[in-house]
Amino acid sequence: MVDVVPTLQALRPRDVSGRVAVVIDVLRATSTLVTALAAGAREVRPAATPREARVRYDRLAAARGGTEGLLLGGERMGLRIEGFDLGNSPLEYTPERVSGKTIFFTTTNGTRTLRRAAGTRTGGGGARRVLVAAFLNATAVAKEVLSAEGDVVLCCAGTRGGFSLEDILLAGFIAAHLERNAPFVFRDLARAAAALYRSMAGEDGRDLARAVAAADHARHLTALGFGDDIVLCATLDTTDIVPEYRRGRVVVP
Amino acid sequence: MVDVVPTLQALRPRDVSGRVAVVIDVLRATSTLVTALAAGAREVRPAATPREARVRYDRLAAARGGTEGLLLGGERMGLRIEGFDLGNSPLEYTPERVSGKTIFFTTTNGTRTLRRAAGTRTGGGGARRVLVAAFLNATAVAKEVLSAEGDVVLCCAGTRGGFSLEDILLAGFIAAHLERNAPFVFRDLARAAAALYRSMAGEDGRDLARAVAAADHARHLTALGFGDDIVLCATLDTTDIVPEYRRGRVVVP
Repeated sequence: MVDVVPTLQALRPRDVSGRVAVVIDVLRATSTLVTALAAGAREVRPAATPREARVRYDRLAAARGGTEGLLLGGERMGLRIEGFDLGNSPLEYTPERVSGKTIFFTTTNGTRTLRRAAGTRTGGGGARRVLVAAFLNATAVAKEVLSAEGDVVLCCAGTRGGFSLEDILLAGFIAAHLERNAPFVFRDLARAAAALYRSMAGEDGRDLARAVAAADHARHLTALGFGDDIVLCATLDTTDIVPEYRRGRVVVP
Repeated sequence: MVDVVPTLQALRPRDVSGRVAVVIDVLRATSTLVTALAAGAREVRPAATPREARVRYDRLAAARGGTEGLLLGGERMGLRIEGFDLGNSPLEYTPERVSGKTIFFTTTNGTRTLRRAAGTRTGGGGARRVLVAAFLNATAVAKEVLSAEGDVVLCCAGTRGGFSLEDILLAGFIAAHLERNAPFVFRDLARAAAALYRSMAGEDGRDLARAVAAADHARHLTALGFGDDIVLCATLDTTDIVPEYRRGRVVVP
């Protein structure tokens, strides 16, 4: 069974329970997570709030006797948080900045979607596995889902409680890959997302960059000066890593 | 501005406030409402629960000294409610049964979507107007929206809290009509719904019946024995009435 949940707010425990969850926040949290780990970051520890990120960073720095190897990253309202090392632009997460580092990371929707998909820490109700998807690793994620077997739910973060076109397009790319490669039962939104991807991006993805650039949140980010991020986040298959969220950390297994 | 809300649960007061709202529950509440009013029903009074429908029916019957001209209609779990005159199949709402009648009507999602779109009874926060759309009157609704001017939000009821393909397809039909006939700013889901309609139903709607029949809720209703309803509810433009929800009643103005 393949299902799609359109927003963080619509994600209910029963949507993910026992399934493989794929978390999608194209602009920009999951694109940044994939970029950071592809650039050699050791791990990313998502935090719900800037304060939580800071407290956990300080606690680990104290335990280690220094901030060597630690970074703070994330955004609020699209912008870098005061005092943080990095914002939420994947372009900042270069090998020079992040290789070997542990990054405490917080964004408005992406982090909460990871946590909600994973369920409670005591193990009740969460997904069997939580994979992190961007266009940058889209085919690798689709292949991993196929090899994991079982039901899959593509969990879109959305934007400010609403549907995000770029997230549904990525869900559609993955759904279309699954449709071609194995017999799945498709729920309505999974079937719709696959049709939408083919219609707006083209079977070969030729119009993907244009479709993403026309999305509401892309236009907002472009107005904030992040136009280059949009181009990067709409690029298919630059890496084959599949980051996974496990026990509060995003790592490449 | 044209926006689409995918489910009753996602509908927030700020989505509709001061706008023209179009309520969509293709399978089957709004298809039944349009059919009943096209068949000459005097008015439909939506109720949240079977009990509320019954109490209001009894109260009006007592005031009038009889049940002449009154009917009870609606469903729970897809089936007629015990003791009600009519279920939620549009095929039951013939001129012979409903012409001139006042119908107290309750369904799981459709009624709540009408009420939520209309806002509180004291006038705070609701839509400027609430129109009732089905494929049966889709072009008439789109024309009414154009002549009403201003922002429009297409409010899909959805099914059990989830996205319904047939509702998004009707939202897409109306959005595509608006796109062709006037300059609107389209929000993400409005643009996506229009693309999805063209992709799944075809520019001319030729594949509409097949697309609706493949939807999750259509397959559920077919299994319950309502296959003929699906065919009827996927038929375009059989009437040009545009029912409107005003002060607790659905009427043809």
